[in-house]
Amino acid sequence: MWSPAGLPRAALLAVAAAAAALAVAAWRRPRPLREVLFFPSRPCCLEALLAEAPGAPALPCPCPLPRAETSLSRLVRRLLSARRSLDLCIFAFSCPQLARAVQLLHRRGVRVRLVTDAQYMGLHGSQIGRLRHAGIQVRHDQHGGFMHHKFAIVDRRMLITGSLNWTTQAIQSNRENVLVVDDAACVKPFLDEFERIWEEYNPTNYVFPKVSN
Amino acid sequence: MWSPAGLPRAALLAVAAAAAALAVAAWRRPRPLREVLFFPSRPCCLEALLAEAPGAPALPCPCPLPRAETSLSRLVRRLLSARRSLDLCIFAFSCPQLARAVQLLHRRGVRVRLVTDAQYMGLHGSQIGRLRHAGIQVRHDQHGGFMHHKFAIVDRRMLITGSLNWTTQAIQSNRENVLVVDDAACVKPFLDEFERIWEEYNPTNYVFPKVSN
Repeated sequence: MWSPAGLPRAALLAVAAAAAALAVAAWRRPRPLREVLFFPSRPCCLEALLAEAPGAPALPCPCPLPRAETSLSRLVRRLLSARRSLDLCIFAFSCPQLARAVQLLHRRGVRVRLVTDAQYMGLHGSQIGRLRHAGIQVRHDQHGGFMHHKFAIVDRRMLITGSLNWTTQAIQSNRENVLVVDDAACVKPFLDEFERIWEEYNPTNYVFPKVSN
Repeated sequence: MWSPAGLPRAALLAVAAAAAALAVAAWRRPRPLREVLFFPSRPCCLEALLAEAPGAPALPCPCPLPRAETSLSRLVRRLLSARRSLDLCIFAFSCPQLARAVQLLHRRGVRVRLVTDAQYMGLHGSQIGRLRHAGIQVRHDQHGGFMHHKFAIVDRRMLITGSLNWTTQAIQSNRENVLVVDDAACVKPFLDEFERIWEEYNPTNYVFPKVSN
């Protein structure tokens, strides 16, 4: 019968070293990102985050709001970490600070795509018009139920999802949650859902009633 | 200088075996649960899932709905896996099938606690009254913004969260998502948030205006 005791010492050493390296690599696998944010979030000044270029010093802000770290500032920080793409599915979007963050990414050359709800995009205070005016691609449903998702995908590898609509009311007054994760088993299905909706809401698919002359 | 080449063969073998076992154990760590459900979900018959005792045969159902696996049936299956506790924070709860599942768990002896929104619990079709009538503990906010969470925690170890309100409209007509995860880094903050809200919404904390005689 074969026995490891018959192996030469050098081979045994190599096996031991390889197994040890594997064990260390396995235990050191990078911990997945898990951040949970709860709202309401108290008002805070975000100017320090909203500098034009990543890492550039922000203009000093005279506003009296605290510079504290809050759930909103953490959310904005995650969004602003985008370098290549930001895919957004947001039911109600009326928060001016989040709209500024999205516009900033657009100006930095990040590819921003935004899907929203046709009925809510027209409400007073909606930021959708402003974002479209800034040149950001927006698509929306045409019929039926609400496009009720509220998720963002940063660089196709970080998912930001939860109960939070991007409205000042929700951020400052409601009990809400946002979960930030980066494992592919979560991100991939949301990416696929985004692409499905993006294609389905392509304006070339809209149907308009015939107008009789 | 110490060198592993100086070790006796038996010690080397033991080191190699231990390192190999560690490596295998590390790579075999149970994969965390990640399930993503998207809605709308087509109507389906849930009778086979809603048997009185876990695993018991369900009564045959004459309804014409398909017995297919859908996002709703997967959600119900996850809820019905509860054996000890179900903690619910649900903004709008009007889906009779989900209310049946919650009542069933209550009858099976699972400790169900439900937090909801004061303004939405009174709307037409709300299931909150029915659940209270069945003996389930319900608490709600008294003032201010919405209790807008939509999450469930099963047995303090599985989190079910997302954009989905528990309404038939949302399930059958809206674009919605539900994420099911079981890692403690996600579940623990939601458990803590639930306990915070549960205490805050204790009816002994309600404030009522003074009535003058």
